[in-house]
Amino acid sequence: MVPRYSRPQMEAIWSPAARYRIWFEIEALAAEAMASIGTIPADAARIIREKGAPRAAAISDADVAAIDAIERETRHDVIAFLTWMAQGIGPEARFMHQGMTSSDVLDTCLAVQMARAADLLIADLDALLAALKARAMEHRMTPTVGRSHGIHAEPTTFGLKLAGHHAEFARGRARLVAARAEVATCAISGPVGTFASVDPRVEAFVADRLGLAVEPVSTQVIPRDRHAAFFCALAVVASAIERLATEVRHLQRSEVREAEEFFHPGQKGSSAMPHKRNPVLSENLTGLARLVRGYAVPALENVALWHERDISHSSVERVIAPDATIALDFALMRLTGMMEKLTVYPARMAANLESLGGVVHSQKVLLALTQAGMSREDAYRAVQRAAMATWEALGTPAARGFRDNLLADATVSALLDGPALDAAMDPRRDFAHVDTIFRRVFGEG
Amino acid sequence: MVPRYSRPQMEAIWSPAARYRIWFEIEALAAEAMASIGTIPADAARIIREKGAPRAAAISDADVAAIDAIERETRHDVIAFLTWMAQGIGPEARFMHQGMTSSDVLDTCLAVQMARAADLLIADLDALLAALKARAMEHRMTPTVGRSHGIHAEPTTFGLKLAGHHAEFARGRARLVAARAEVATCAISGPVGTFASVDPRVEAFVADRLGLAVEPVSTQVIPRDRHAAFFCALAVVASAIERLATEVRHLQRSEVREAEEFFHPGQKGSSAMPHKRNPVLSENLTGLARLVRGYAVPALENVALWHERDISHSSVERVIAPDATIALDFALMRLTGMMEKLTVYPARMAANLESLGGVVHSQKVLLALTQAGMSREDAYRAVQRAAMATWEALGTPAARGFRDNLLADATVSALLDGPALDAAMDPRRDFAHVDTIFRRVFGEG
Amino acid sequence: MVPRYSRPQMEAIWSPAARYRIWFEIEALAAEAMASIGTIPADAARIIREKGAPRAAAISDADVAAIDAIERETRHDVIAFLTWMAQGIGPEARFMHQGMTSSDVLDTCLAVQMARAADLLIADLDALLAALKARAMEHRMTPTVGRSHGIHAEPTTFGLKLAGHHAEFARGRARLVAARAEVATCAISGPVGTFASVDPRVEAFVADRLGLAVEPVSTQVIPRDRHAAFFCALAVVASAIERLATEVRHLQRSEVREAEEFFHPGQKGSSAMPHKRNPVLSENLTGLARLVRGYAVPALENVALWHERDISHSSVERVIAPDATIALDFALMRLTGMMEKLTVYPARMAANLESLGGVVHSQKVLLALTQAGMSREDAYRAVQRAAMATWEALGTPAARGFRDNLLADATVSALLDGPALDAAMDPRRDFAHVDTIFRRVFGEG
Amino acid sequence: MVPRYSRPQMEAIWSPAARYRIWFEIEALAAEAMASIGTIPADAARIIREKGAPRAAAISDADVAAIDAIERETRHDVIAFLTWMAQGIGPEARFMHQGMTSSDVLDTCLAVQMARAADLLIADLDALLAALKARAMEHRMTPTVGRSHGIHAEPTTFGLKLAGHHAEFARGRARLVAARAEVATCAISGPVGTFASVDPRVEAFVADRLGLAVEPVSTQVIPRDRHAAFFCALAVVASAIERLATEVRHLQRSEVREAEEFFHPGQKGSSAMPHKRNPVLSENLTGLARLVRGYAVPALENVALWHERDISHSSVERVIAPDATIALDFALMRLTGMMEKLTVYPARMAANLESLGGVVHSQKVLLALTQAGMSREDAYRAVQRAAMATWEALGTPAARGFRDNLLADATVSALLDGPALDAAMDPRRDFAHVDTIFRRVFGEG
Repeated sequence: MVPRYSRPQMEAIWSPAARYRIWFEIEALAAEAMASIGTIPADAARIIREKGAPRAAAISDADVAAIDAIERETRHDVIAFLTWMAQGIGPEARFMHQGMTSSDVLDTCLAVQMARAADLLIADLDALLAALKARAMEHRMTPTVGRSHGIHAEPTTFGLKLAGHHAEFARGRARLVAARAEVATCAISGPVGTFASVDPRVEAFVADRLGLAVEPVSTQVIPRDRHAAFFCALAVVASAIERLATEVRHLQRSEVREAEEFFHPGQKGSSAMPHKRNPVLSENLTGLARLVRGYAVPALENVALWHERDISHSSVERVIAPDATIALDFALMRLTGMMEKLTVYPARMAANLESLGGVVHSQKVLLALTQAGMSREDAYRAVQRAAMATWEALGTPAARGFRDNLLADATVSALLDGPALDAAMDPRRDFAHVDTIFRRVFGEG
Repeated sequence: MVPRYSRPQMEAIWSPAARYRIWFEIEALAAEAMASIGTIPADAARIIREKGAPRAAAISDADVAAIDAIERETRHDVIAFLTWMAQGIGPEARFMHQGMTSSDVLDTCLAVQMARAADLLIADLDALLAALKARAMEHRMTPTVGRSHGIHAEPTTFGLKLAGHHAEFARGRARLVAARAEVATCAISGPVGTFASVDPRVEAFVADRLGLAVEPVSTQVIPRDRHAAFFCALAVVASAIERLATEVRHLQRSEVREAEEFFHPGQKGSSAMPHKRNPVLSENLTGLARLVRGYAVPALENVALWHERDISHSSVERVIAPDATIALDFALMRLTGMMEKLTVYPARMAANLESLGGVVHSQKVLLALTQAGMSREDAYRAVQRAAMATWEALGTPAARGFRDNLLADATVSALLDGPALDAAMDPRRDFAHVDTIFRRVFGEG
Repeated sequence: MVPRYSRPQMEAIWSPAARYRIWFEIEALAAEAMASIGTIPADAARIIREKGAPRAAAISDADVAAIDAIERETRHDVIAFLTWMAQGIGPEARFMHQGMTSSDVLDTCLAVQMARAADLLIADLDALLAALKARAMEHRMTPTVGRSHGIHAEPTTFGLKLAGHHAEFARGRARLVAARAEVATCAISGPVGTFASVDPRVEAFVADRLGLAVEPVSTQVIPRDRHAAFFCALAVVASAIERLATEVRHLQRSEVREAEEFFHPGQKGSSAMPHKRNPVLSENLTGLARLVRGYAVPALENVALWHERDISHSSVERVIAPDATIALDFALMRLTGMMEKLTVYPARMAANLESLGGVVHSQKVLLALTQAGMSREDAYRAVQRAAMATWEALGTPAARGFRDNLLADATVSALLDGPALDAAMDPRRDFAHVDTIFRRVFGEG
Repeated sequence: MVPRYSRPQMEAIWSPAARYRIWFEIEALAAEAMASIGTIPADAARIIREKGAPRAAAISDADVAAIDAIERETRHDVIAFLTWMAQGIGPEARFMHQGMTSSDVLDTCLAVQMARAADLLIADLDALLAALKARAMEHRMTPTVGRSHGIHAEPTTFGLKLAGHHAEFARGRARLVAARAEVATCAISGPVGTFASVDPRVEAFVADRLGLAVEPVSTQVIPRDRHAAFFCALAVVASAIERLATEVRHLQRSEVREAEEFFHPGQKGSSAMPHKRNPVLSENLTGLARLVRGYAVPALENVALWHERDISHSSVERVIAPDATIALDFALMRLTGMMEKLTVYPARMAANLESLGGVVHSQKVLLALTQAGMSREDAYRAVQRAAMATWEALGTPAARGFRDNLLADATVSALLDGPALDAAMDPRRDFAHVDTIFRRVFGEG
């Protein structure tokens, strides 16, 4: 992922040095397990750990280059690493990797990295959820117009909008927790996964020490349906980001102006037009969501490996595992900051809510008419007539409010007089169940 | 979905009549709930049910056409349906849909349909799992070569291969169960989801009767992250199908011939070449998997609806909800039948396993040499030398088995004599842990 | 594709009967070619044509079912068709399909169908281009605000907006023409494409009669990169549809109201809210665009068939070839109708353009200041200051126009007085090059 | 893109310094154009070029960091760059970027970069085409079995296989040339694309100097359908790579062994199994193809920008423009090297071709029987019977060749005796048209 969209903590998970350190840890733990069951000498395991651990811990850029140089000859990354480690460990290095195959190391390492990445993403989501909850509570009763199809529908509150996004990200968090469990498995089963030359107890030992589950049946590789499910979970979270970002983009439109991304002192919105303040963060998040969604496509194609394994998944994962997690981590944190600092304009929300002459209350009048005995079809026509008359005259000298247009309609006023209409359109009814919904989303309190 | 890939039971879930029947059930239940809390007269709910139920139950193609005709005028599908129902119910029809909006009906109906579709798919998976288990048990100890990169690696058993696929489909089943729970929610919250004109108790009542959970916060629509997660789950299952189909395609290759799709009496493999027996079912499944994966892409784009809802998701779902579930249902059942009837050739498996002169035991020799004191690097080189010599002479007059080539290498024979080599390569070692893996996958017994 | 989004003319291309008629035509033409070079008796070709043509022309649903019944035994669609044809042709039927393989028929038929579908789509685009041109000409000089990031930027005209979409669809048309040429090839090369038993002259003859190019090298199948490119071209056109649909959705927002989809007498916008007039066509088009884009994904996966061919592409194409072309055909015609009838509100456009107190002219002031000697950075700061002051006071008692705020700034008024400002902000400058752009898009006149 | 899959020449196109140098060139050319038409002083343009050119040419990592630092304050990349340039140019810098907007610079720069990337990719394809042609010529008449469905079909030549891939990559090259033309356009049209403050002659001048076409109508941005088409073209080429890579993977299978990736001295195929030689390059290419295909998905979503532009495309393109072109460049060169060094085993091809007892000639016998008067259905059954008998006895003591089984069938031998059968199955017929196909693909000679 380009530096622009990368945060150091997530990048660090995917660095070559981090990967090599995990590789060593897997090999050292496996050696210890083998020593404990007598497959290799106890001394060998001890020496591997004692000499290997500091060597692995101190891996530098130069060391990475040295390993790369060995790989250029062997054309095999794990062998290159083992060869380089052996240079520091000495003859006992021959007891490393006994009965194992490179996938045991690679796939278990990837599991550790993906689990760590998932942990970061879950923490990101926690921060986002906290921000959304705070703003939702703050605006629990801030009236604003609810829109369907981009058209004013009925009143809602800004807090309710945020509560909906909170619930969606809470679901996304649950999906990430499930996805983490999917990928956090350890396989040390040797070639084609039969444990022919490595005891299953080694796998159990390493899994336990690394906090992973044992992969029940690996075919040399950990099956890639797990990873596909993981990247799909990221894609759904990314799409939730896009939904909230799109909301902000809409609210910041010049004609709407109900909310606005924080505009920093010194910030310039456009190289040409000094008046511009643009929702560039939300737009950026929209693009990042597209990227993360796109990464799910090759992840799904990775599932159908040939026979016990092929290595076509590898190039895909070398790219998308860091790219998707780094981009999503960045996007979540950017979104959190954006929502924390979002400037909200309740007065403008109120003005927009009133701007269509009251037609947003049309349903309640329709219901009152049917309750008063009119057929649904007739009531619909009468209310639609009054609403359209209101709407079409907006901003013209002939403008007349929805209430007045209703009263001017004989079929309506025959059933509902002014006070009855006012009762039907009482705005308190719109918010009567806000607390119910908040309780559902945020629990009691 | 084209008829060719459709089974009646799944198609039925998505028929117009089925949809209208669910719509009616939602409206009738909602009316009953409203009557029970006094929003509408009790008689109205009774009459809606009594007159409406038989009308809905008997919806014919002609009725569907009649509703379509109304829709051509109103340009609104739910209003068209309500109008048509009202024709049979009479004046009390005005108490239907009180305070509700069309999404309440549409989205709750979709939830019912998706839950039913998921149930069918889960049953399909159960049948597939049973078939895979039966064949796995049958071939638990049928030796065959394990392949990585398409190259012979080490021995495994055909049962182990199937156990791996069983475990993958069991995970797919768990994901479908989770996905079903994601989408099986009921929303009856009225315009923009505020319950302004419909009591939350109505939603609770309908949800309970339909076996759905209450949607905690709907914004007029049930949020589409749920559906995206559902279609992603289908896509991962489809990819698992492709993995097994690809295995069968490989095993049926002319050069491999280890297994074969059942060839029916009367079947013709090619219009031109009478000798052909092709793995056409597996290839068909590979294509179906691509389709189902493809449907996840627009499902993910559907998440970011505008504000409280727009209707861009609708055209997507009208197509992919039936198409993805029908195609996956068909694919699962086709795969089950194919696996049940798969012809397996153990003799050919044994012949292939032996065909490379024994080099599939190279790792065990490598380990024996390191255990005997040789460095890993030297041992690797010696064994690689013997293996390559074996491989390259295959089928030539100079052909010599791996064992003989090893013994002919002084550095090897200095450490391992014939009996030691035989002990290292003892094929019983390859299958020592098959039972362990079977227990992990299938449990005890 | 579901009937809702299908037009008869495009559906007809993909009907079973249509396919069988093309199959027969290919076989009959091939027989004639073979007769002309002496491979089969001349009489045979004549009888095949004479007896077969009426049989093929009259294929009924019952015939399709009869062919299906044969396929259930042979499990091969082309053999089933040939067997059914043979029943009507008699012994000379044995001279049909000589040296050919089913792919020769299937792939050449698909080429004919895709070419026909492309022709319809190109005609659809021509209708859309005409509609866009007419509306663009009508609104060539209708001022409206141009928006970047959803924020008012500078004035433009509504005609210019439409000119941009016209140019995009003209590019889409060119891509479809290219895509049609990609797929309109004929392959009659027999098993594995070697012409071992069919003379290349047969291919040339059939290609010529069907208006197709000869496929230079087919490997039994026409290579699927051609089809992938075709579906990608559809996906790009679909995305252009989404761009225009999104524009209309924005313009119809309650706060914007610059344009509106035609609202039919009798139409109902919402089952709950009689006041609603929603941009449902544009939203529908947005969803259809997602679908068509989604179909490109499996088309791309279809390219890598195994060896000389496998049949995994077939199930994909049976679905996406009709679905993608039918959906796109429907979408293009819907979009054309929508644009023809789009209600445009120039007064509202003018009002919106003025609604931000004149800040949309900020760049021109910036430039005037730099021309008057101020540094770009200082000018930017001064203009930004005046614009933000204007913006933030909008709708408040302290509201003051951008011009006044500029004049109140000493650094500005030191360089530009009122008349100079007015000259800088002269709106005629905004539209000085509209004709230039129109000439580029629509040519002279 | 990760360094592992990056080549320096393609990476260089996308470096920050390269981008800034193109930005400067655009600004300097625009200034020169403005000076030539009198919009800015001639001296200003001269000074911008004289002072700016060396500054831009020498941009170092430290300079990039300095620009980044300015961007952190302005939160605008182009303004940051202009500010940094102004520090070196002095007061005349205020005449840079007059009437332009950042998109003018960004999009025209992207066009330059994409055109350069396309040029590299086209050169890569030329190298690949040369390699494929050379190997195709070398193996023009090397017999090998053609396979459909992975099953032996009829003889072909290895050269013919390669000719098919050559033709596919030649089409890919043509698509890249078209895609290059799509994106190689220049837009300098100012805010919302109206040329309100910048003369169209500036655009024409810059376009000419940069070798770009003028964008007929830009809406501040160059429309993204162009870029979507570009990335789709890359995706189709990537899929062609996968098809050839898949072929090599199949040919290298242990049971097939007809071709093999070059195995370097010192190379190690597996950390566990010294006997392994795996087609790792082809598998790697398969994964890279998935990546490049995946990048087309967000590119298609980028098309529907809001109004005259939003910036959601930007984050997508910052990632996929380099990633897709770098990955494809790497893949093409890797494939070229792989094909140049591919080890081909004609003897093994011949052995495989003969391995099924001659059933690969079944069609020719079928045709001979129909020519001799048997109905197609009867002939099919007879030949199928003989072929299946041959096939099923393969490798058993009862094995009997296809020819013998045919002669043993009374219905066959009644029409065709031994010499007639031999004439029908004459292998020379299989290759009679190889030259025809080669001429089609490679032209005369």
